[in-house]
Amino acid sequence: MRFIIDRDEFLKGLLNASRIIQAKSLDPILNYLKLELNDHQLEITGSNGDLSILTTIPYFLNEKQIIRDTSEGAILVNSKLITEIVKRVDGNEIKFDVMDESIARIEAENSNFKLNVIRASEYREFDFEKTGIEVRLFTKDFLDAINEVGFCASQKDGRAILTAINIECNSQTLTFTATDGARLGRKELRVENSELFNVNVPAKALLEAARSVGNEEEISLFIADKKVIIALANTVLNSKLIPEQYPNVKNIIPKTFNYYLEVNANEILNAMSRVSLFSTERENIVKLTMQEGKIVVSSKSQQTGSAEEELSLFKFTGDRLEISFNCDYVSGAIRALKSQDVLISFIGEMKPFTVVDKNNDSVIQLITPVRTY
Amino acid sequence: MRFIIDRDEFLKGLLNASRIIQAKSLDPILNYLKLELNDHQLEITGSNGDLSILTTIPYFLNEKQIIRDTSEGAILVNSKLITEIVKRVDGNEIKFDVMDESIARIEAENSNFKLNVIRASEYREFDFEKTGIEVRLFTKDFLDAINEVGFCASQKDGRAILTAINIECNSQTLTFTATDGARLGRKELRVENSELFNVNVPAKALLEAARSVGNEEEISLFIADKKVIIALANTVLNSKLIPEQYPNVKNIIPKTFNYYLEVNANEILNAMSRVSLFSTERENIVKLTMQEGKIVVSSKSQQTGSAEEELSLFKFTGDRLEISFNCDYVSGAIRALKSQDVLISFIGEMKPFTVVDKNNDSVIQLITPVRTY
Repeated sequence: MRFIIDRDEFLKGLLNASRIIQAKSLDPILNYLKLELNDHQLEITGSNGDLSILTTIPYFLNEKQIIRDTSEGAILVNSKLITEIVKRVDGNEIKFDVMDESIARIEAENSNFKLNVIRASEYREFDFEKTGIEVRLFTKDFLDAINEVGFCASQKDGRAILTAINIECNSQTLTFTATDGARLGRKELRVENSELFNVNVPAKALLEAARSVGNEEEISLFIADKKVIIALANTVLNSKLIPEQYPNVKNIIPKTFNYYLEVNANEILNAMSRVSLFSTERENIVKLTMQEGKIVVSSKSQQTGSAEEELSLFKFTGDRLEISFNCDYVSGAIRALKSQDVLISFIGEMKPFTVVDKNNDSVIQLITPVRTY
Repeated sequence: MRFIIDRDEFLKGLLNASRIIQAKSLDPILNYLKLELNDHQLEITGSNGDLSILTTIPYFLNEKQIIRDTSEGAILVNSKLITEIVKRVDGNEIKFDVMDESIARIEAENSNFKLNVIRASEYREFDFEKTGIEVRLFTKDFLDAINEVGFCASQKDGRAILTAINIECNSQTLTFTATDGARLGRKELRVENSELFNVNVPAKALLEAARSVGNEEEISLFIADKKVIIALANTVLNSKLIPEQYPNVKNIIPKTFNYYLEVNANEILNAMSRVSLFSTERENIVKLTMQEGKIVVSSKSQQTGSAEEELSLFKFTGDRLEISFNCDYVSGAIRALKSQDVLISFIGEMKPFTVVDKNNDSVIQLITPVRTY
């Protein structure tokens, strides 16, 4: 196996495939990338066991030759070392030459490396075949959905199902749902007629796919029994699905409310950021006191003091209401909407409330309040 | 105690005085800053026990009023909270008003804070009096000296004396020395006639002083029995001295050498950065192989592979020599010189070697090699 390759494109590919590789993997073979050269492209595969990425570098890109002087083959290289070498060397081109499947000679400008490598047959088998139900999405819609609900998935390993984003296809609507038990994000997308399915994709896999997106206009999901394939222009991701039943969250999103608060996103975000300085004892809890003509954001700590701030831009409908919540949840929800016109709707002091973009109801953020002391 | 103060100047002062405060201090009172307002300035004091900083904000700065509506007094405020409040609020001015020595009311634009405070008498006594032998230095000389030798001081608490920079005044020469046992940096400065002294100042204190420097042209050190005062324009630092005897390092800097290598700083730094990728097993050890007309930087690891690189810009005098060293030490020494023309002088394979700026001998970096396997 041998090739001369454009340094920048090689680095881009290596970074793409190596990003998911963990610093300490239980299976040492997962510290390696597989490089496989065929007659038209270099394929780079990386995996952390649950999620695998295959990224390709074609011989020619926009008529520019990226790879030349080739001899086909496949080999495993230490992910961290090859990436650092390509990052640090000077020059525009790198020569990669495998000698008897045990050493790769890497040359660039004045630098000469001999990198110990491993036979490709030692790697695990990863299946990047595009089988199952295909769903095509505009890249922008996919990115929006992931960014709008992904942060609601649980970061903790405790209940695996809550680390997933549930994707349900109901003929013409694709619904993305994520919840960690205290908050929930839901996004609906129109799709063309599609077969029905309901799967739980690890949020990490979808966030990683979102990071791998280049300038492709569309992406495809291929939903199979145990895996999902996410196909981008030059990169394919394979993630396992989480087989459990997703919690039934349909009935917890309220339809009718008793109080409506319209606020300016920046103003309430800044107010909460200041006021929450005094709430570190209880997980950034702040209180919203709402009445006609006056909205106050406040917090209080026995130990350090208290803070309060009046909002100046708002519209409130309803009787007087006090409600306390984790302000990180509300800030996260507001930021995800990417709109200045935010509508928060309440039923009562201890009922979950919704945060939505006033002008777009495709995303709903639901947050459980905490008791006000 | 009461005042209205310019937000930016207040923040600058708070950041300056709070920087040394540790996240977890054994003495909880050290989590507080002392604010003391007299008839012409606000004094802010912060301390970590060993090092204390007093920074001042005058009522007027370049004829602009910074502090107004004052009532004199002193109080202790939580360092982290007051700094975060001032950082996060909007508006140009902040109103600070202490009520019965237990609560400070802080107002800025729409924000209102009530911050629990503590009586000033609860703070420790720190002595910022400018007593002892005074040494005046150009700020630039002071900064150079600290940056050129400070990184050679030990970061570990093991032997306290090695965490110091030794400052010796020999009538007309001020010598700064730092060593962690494996490398040593020494800088000589001309000074006007001064009394003799020889003290060990914690490197951390001097690095902190360097960070506090503004645009003052000169700074003063006041050397007393147990402490040093470092006086900048608006800031005074008080550090304890380390009372032990500094190791006798005078005779370990060689005067005559057998091999001289002139190199370009950037070229050798880049070569070492690449080559050292293969030396993680043994603390970033790289080998320099020198002979007439050919200089090779290399490293080798049983596990991962090997790397070598030829230098193109160099001048070498001497017989063939192989020498191995921790490349972080050599890189640090070369960077500290801030010169492209670097002269490395060797006696032999296992003798300490020096790294100097070819055009300026006021700084000497000495490094102990390691055995070449």
